[in-house]
Amino acid sequence: MRILTGIQSSGKPHLGNILGAIMPAIELSKQAGNESFLFIADLHTLTSLRDGEQIRTNTLSIAAAWLAFGFDTDKNYFYRQSKLASYHTEIMWYLNCVTPYPMLANAHSFKDKSTQMANVNAGLFTYPVLQAADIVLYDAELIPVGKDQRQHIEMTRDIAGSFNRMAENDIFVIPEAYINESVMTIPGIDGNKMSKSLNNYIDIFLPEKDLLKQIKKIESDSTPLEDPKDPDNDITFKLYQLIATPEQTAEMRQNYLAGGYGYGHAKQALHSLMLEYFKEAREKFDYYMNNPALIEEKLEIGERKVEPIAAATLSRVREVFKF
Amino acid sequence: MRILTGIQSSGKPHLGNILGAIMPAIELSKQAGNESFLFIADLHTLTSLRDGEQIRTNTLSIAAAWLAFGFDTDKNYFYRQSKLASYHTEIMWYLNCVTPYPMLANAHSFKDKSTQMANVNAGLFTYPVLQAADIVLYDAELIPVGKDQRQHIEMTRDIAGSFNRMAENDIFVIPEAYINESVMTIPGIDGNKMSKSLNNYIDIFLPEKDLLKQIKKIESDSTPLEDPKDPDNDITFKLYQLIATPEQTAEMRQNYLAGGYGYGHAKQALHSLMLEYFKEAREKFDYYMNNPALIEEKLEIGERKVEPIAAATLSRVREVFKF
Repeated sequence: MRILTGIQSSGKPHLGNILGAIMPAIELSKQAGNESFLFIADLHTLTSLRDGEQIRTNTLSIAAAWLAFGFDTDKNYFYRQSKLASYHTEIMWYLNCVTPYPMLANAHSFKDKSTQMANVNAGLFTYPVLQAADIVLYDAELIPVGKDQRQHIEMTRDIAGSFNRMAENDIFVIPEAYINESVMTIPGIDGNKMSKSLNNYIDIFLPEKDLLKQIKKIESDSTPLEDPKDPDNDITFKLYQLIATPEQTAEMRQNYLAGGYGYGHAKQALHSLMLEYFKEAREKFDYYMNNPALIEEKLEIGERKVEPIAAATLSRVREVFKF
Repeated sequence: MRILTGIQSSGKPHLGNILGAIMPAIELSKQAGNESFLFIADLHTLTSLRDGEQIRTNTLSIAAAWLAFGFDTDKNYFYRQSKLASYHTEIMWYLNCVTPYPMLANAHSFKDKSTQMANVNAGLFTYPVLQAADIVLYDAELIPVGKDQRQHIEMTRDIAGSFNRMAENDIFVIPEAYINESVMTIPGIDGNKMSKSLNNYIDIFLPEKDLLKQIKKIESDSTPLEDPKDPDNDITFKLYQLIATPEQTAEMRQNYLAGGYGYGHAKQALHSLMLEYFKEAREKFDYYMNNPALIEEKLEIGERKVEPIAAATLSRVREVFKF
């Protein structure tokens, strides 16, 4: 299966991104018969961030994170959307012309912002069409998404289907959404879903001391050290159990229930476990961040590799209009 | 001055287009110090027409008409938007990201269609942004438009200005609208403004007999042949006076006022005058339509000539985002 994933270059990947998206996507890409298209969606990023330096830094850290977790760029496809911008945007225009305005006006992502319409730009309004272009351009078959993104894949299916009917030809592959029910929501340090915008994230690539500082900010209740504690209502425990072995988790549960074991101890243990669990990834991340030319090289190779696929799709589309 | 005009490839140019747009634009292009960018806006055409064969035929007849009236493709720039689609659409995306949604929602062209929203596609909704891209891509300074199009040039100015402020740099030239007050409205055979959509047009490139048939359909009142007639309330007279010399017009006015001169006579006279006035243009039009390879060649030369200008603008824009 041809699988496609885009990541906005809006920030450095945090623990939530890594456990919730990067690691499962890499697992999927390793399965026999799969090939993954992984791209930095930096054209989408422009709908909210326009600082070139910031976008470049974010792009490097995202690429370094995927490489650090072992994304195989030889087997798969790894590229920046901006380097193929002409293909993405030209296909987008053709799709715009078969996308009904009401479909976009009814998108959740737009309706959520309808109270602050003056802040919505035309890029944000039409981004489901660019997303459709991102997908059909590479004949992608499977799009791993969270449940909240299912509507966008439906929109891609509708738009691509309309185009095919208009052209009376199967110009585009119609993709399927892939919702991995086993991927859990990762809590942030305040217990809400970990996200950059809530500023409740843990950055596993920080130096050891800084990482400990972040972990110490995880919220907990005021149960005294000597009392037993409820592991299932504690954020530190929840995070611990996401990366611990079953044995480690059972032992930690015992510590909580027994009493005499404080949240500070649990946080120290979480810190140690993270350093151990992410040892290789942290080292590789630092290595790539210190050698941006290596990242650049891998991306450039990927960009050369995807270009003929994009060009072939665009040719099929232009032929419809005799362009 | 760098002047830019785009023409949708939605049909063969009629008398209204020729007198109201083509001939004035060619005059303007001939003035010393002016260079004109004239393009077939076939990406815009896709918002309403998606038949590739039809678009190709329309493109040829539009190009043939401009060539027939003497547009100098050596001095000026003559090209199809679709052949530079990647430049137009990529710039459009960047402009999308600085265009407020309410600006597009408030455009007359959209509001006029708000009762039939389901028929509005995202291309039509965002076409003012593509139009802005068409203009800024070539550093155009002056855009000849009808009064009803003034708002779109204001939008281009707003969008390009927003981008420049965001980039803290004069990336784009801010264009001016040029409204030629002396260009009159050309009446169609029913007295309304001549337009393809009202199907009230006169096609001056028709064979002589077919042209006469169209002219005979011009509406007139039922004043008997022998009675005096009011030239200023007659469509045939109005059309006659648009192309006649002052002497010819004075003589025709006399015929109307004297009586004994019927509308049939006036229509015959209009037909003869048209054949004479458009003799060279009709011959050249047929010549080009019979030699489409010549049109193709001129367009290809124009496309090669504009590409470096588009590429230079795109480079300036990409530099802003470090792409």
